[in-house]
Amino acid sequence: MSRDAEATKARLLEAATDEFAAHGIAGARVDRISAVARVNKSMIYAYFGGKDALFDAVMNAHVTRLLDSVPFTPADLPGYAGRLFDYLLANPHQLRLATWYRLERPVTGIPTEVRTSLFDKSAAIAQAQRAGILPSTLTAEDLLVFLLGLVTAWLPSSPNAVPNVAADQLAEHRGAVVVAVRLLVHSGP
Amino acid sequence: MSRDAEATKARLLEAATDEFAAHGIAGARVDRISAVARVNKSMIYAYFGGKDALFDAVMNAHVTRLLDSVPFTPADLPGYAGRLFDYLLANPHQLRLATWYRLERPVTGIPTEVRTSLFDKSAAIAQAQRAGILPSTLTAEDLLVFLLGLVTAWLPSSPNAVPNVAADQLAEHRGAVVVAVRLLVHSGP
Repeated sequence: MSRDAEATKARLLEAATDEFAAHGIAGARVDRISAVARVNKSMIYAYFGGKDALFDAVMNAHVTRLLDSVPFTPADLPGYAGRLFDYLLANPHQLRLATWYRLERPVTGIPTEVRTSLFDKSAAIAQAQRAGILPSTLTAEDLLVFLLGLVTAWLPSSPNAVPNVAADQLAEHRGAVVVAVRLLVHSGP
Repeated sequence: MSRDAEATKARLLEAATDEFAAHGIAGARVDRISAVARVNKSMIYAYFGGKDALFDAVMNAHVTRLLDSVPFTPADLPGYAGRLFDYLLANPHQLRLATWYRLERPVTGIPTEVRTSLFDKSAAIAQAQRAGILPSTLTAEDLLVFLLGLVTAWLPSSPNAVPNVAADQLAEHRGAVVVAVRLLVHSGP
């Protein structure tokens, strides 16, 4: 692909990310994406095949970057939780895109990359449990899903959080997230 | 209000609940709501004032029912978590409506009733902490938001959960939710 074509695709992906994060899949308008990217609408179809496929491309790019940026450390789940919290706070589109996905695609429910990543992480936790590094109070799957629940509980697209919490106040809850995950993996009586 | 008017409003609210839960606020169509409720569209405006106000009415009804159905028990947070999990599993619209609300109204972020309820619950937890019934490892606010994060982590509109988990399989995670909350409120070393 030519350098021009790469730049055009990158501009489309960037504009699409903002549009999908703000309005979701059904609410996103291809017209707005092409206007912001200053690219003819027909190029969206030429490069990506359509709105749904463009959303998939945006999700894939985000998931890949997240997985590359926050390595999973089963022997240090509290540390992983803190780093994931930092990443999601710095990249608010990530969780909004994932949440739209869950609401608007209830049948498929989750991208393949995420599914694979959850499966691999769950397997790594199970291995750490067999090795005695982590307690077996909870199953590996429960422990992983609860860790993610704790990490995302305070973040803006969570249905639980107190509203209008400013970003700097959110950061104050990072320590509590780490403590909460530590309590989960503490092999108490 | 006459009995007929009450019945009409009730039919509209029921149809609106399904429509908003499925499509969100922007995605909901007043035409579909009036068709399903077999009520002229003008009555939506007469009774509720418009689509946004109709959404508010649906949210209010759901929040009120939830708060009435699942009493808060600060001295038994694991038990509360289990009962809230049961309720949300039996009433899947509740969490979808709350999630759409968070995504589509990022500024207001949360209905007044929910805000008040979170504030009251947080105050009750703080009181239990002062009385020594609950540990003070986490602040009352963190403890409440993490409890909600754990309760919702497995549920279908969570961005975290493994996809396509059937309802009977979800129920299997109830015990783990209760254990996880118990670990959070365990006053360990």
